Amino acid sequence: MELINTIYEMKQWSKERQNNSIAFVPTMGFLHIGHVTLLEHAKKIADKSVLSIYVNPSQFRPGEDLDKYPRDMEGDLKKAKNAGTDCVFIPDSNEIYPENYQTWIEVMELQKGLCGDSRPGHFKGVATIVCKLFNIVRPDFAIFGEKDFQQLAIIRQMVADLNMDIKIIGHPTIREENGLAFSSRNAYLTEKQRFDIAPNIYKTLLQALNIIKNGEKQAVNVENFIIKGLSVFKEFKIDYIFIGNKFTLKKTDIIDNNTIIAIAVWLGNTRLIDNAQLCSE
Amino acid sequence: MELINTIYEMKQWSKERQNNSIAFVPTMGFLHIGHVTLLEHAKKIADKSVLSIYVNPSQFRPGEDLDKYPRDMEGDLKKAKNAGTDCVFIPDSNEIYPENYQTWIEVMELQKGLCGDSRPGHFKGVATIVCKLFNIVRPDFAIFGEKDFQQLAIIRQMVADLNMDIKIIGHPTIREENGLAFSSRNAYLTEKQRFDIAPNIYKTLLQALNIIKNGEKQAVNVENFIIKGLSVFKEFKIDYIFIGNKFTLKKTDIIDNNTIIAIAVWLGNTRLIDNAQLCSE
Repeated sequence: MELINTIYEMKQWSKERQNNSIAFVPTMGFLHIGHVTLLEHAKKIADKSVLSIYVNPSQFRPGEDLDKYPRDMEGDLKKAKNAGTDCVFIPDSNEIYPENYQTWIEVMELQKGLCGDSRPGHFKGVATIVCKLFNIVRPDFAIFGEKDFQQLAIIRQMVADLNMDIKIIGHPTIREENGLAFSSRNAYLTEKQRFDIAPNIYKTLLQALNIIKNGEKQAVNVENFIIKGLSVFKEFKIDYIFIGNKFTLKKTDIIDNNTIIAIAVWLGNTRLIDNAQLCSE
Repeated sequence: MELINTIYEMKQWSKERQNNSIAFVPTMGFLHIGHVTLLEHAKKIADKSVLSIYVNPSQFRPGEDLDKYPRDMEGDLKKAKNAGTDCVFIPDSNEIYPENYQTWIEVMELQKGLCGDSRPGHFKGVATIVCKLFNIVRPDFAIFGEKDFQQLAIIRQMVADLNMDIKIIGHPTIREENGLAFSSRNAYLTEKQRFDIAPNIYKTLLQALNIIKNGEKQAVNVENFIIKGLSVFKEFKIDYIFIGNKFTLKKTDIIDNNTIIAIAVWLGNTRLIDNAQLCSE
């Protein structure tokens, strides 16, 4: 497994492998089983797999958790190696955003609403860093978890709109046995929050899917069902519940096969997101 | 010379020439000697040369000259062929900006001021279409005229910021014998405007360079000199006079070797731009 720190060397590495297919998994590090699954999938679908580890400052607002975002480089490299990763790109912020950096990409419609509302500027930072990493790594495939489904929709749209030659692959969310979606931010949770409270997010989503399967088609009723279900746990503060089209991210009144239910809740100082789809892709 | 209309075929063409170097000249058509010079230069520096002809609607504001922008496809193709161009890409707007298109690129600092002030949104449209064309054509070199020097600065910054692997080449402005910079918009001018009035823009710029060479270092004095020089011709309405750094596009008080003098004037309903550098690159 090769470790690369500079943009120049990363570009060279990819150029030398022009005749191989490359699958890319961009991350902010502190890898969990979800990431490892993406890396294993990368290995399966392409000749070479590349992981990037970069906590991108431009997708954090002042006051967000940039400084305390969990890091474990040693553990990350071990996990990447075990997953058969060929190359790990760990760029330096001074090179990614040099003095006088000033180019930003916005996916205007999809960045609105949901996480875009509570984290203004977040998706501009995400779109821009992903475009930069794509230009540096030049992958044939890039793999993202479906947990961050607004991010996934935005990257798909950017790649199509800017005519990039990269196939974007969404990978189903990996969960703990109790249903909690793996997330680096789970590290912020207390034992009680993590094992007793947080798993009820997905449990409630599954119950919501169930009442839909039993005939409920009104989004507003499903939303109220979720609010009621979560209200049992006073520790939750709901940020948003979104019931809408998984491609356009437009709210829906009547639920159909393209509907996704997405949710963000605060548990103490930690914001957790999750989602469930009527039909998976 | 190959003519290509679809994004897919253009990408294929470039892919098949992966082992050749490609030089690219993006234009809005209605080619003049300036463009032809760029095409000839492209032919010189690379194995293959590609011209694109696309009047990009997103860089025109409502009320600007999008609809009446001059077109001459037959003449353009003849000139491109004579310049030895290998491939002409003439995309369709429905494919460039499909329904639901929503991704935009902004070069935040350099798009301010100068032409950015009188044409808000213009450089967002320019940066975005150029990025798209770069991703479609995948050139090693791209050549732009120095006449549009703010555009050139913005594209250079975008390419560096987004880590694109393209060498951007600025080519000196090509002029009529009387000094008027070649521009597709010269077609809007009357005979009198074109031959008697418009050439005084560059004449005045040259006179300004001259007083600088003779010791004048105060930008404000040079600006007043230009205003006075142009005021002789009542047909001119000055849009802006910019005296500043040619890389950062920041105004300067004291003139130095990196100074550029750029000017935009209205002549009737036609807006003309030109510039002169203390030292050429």
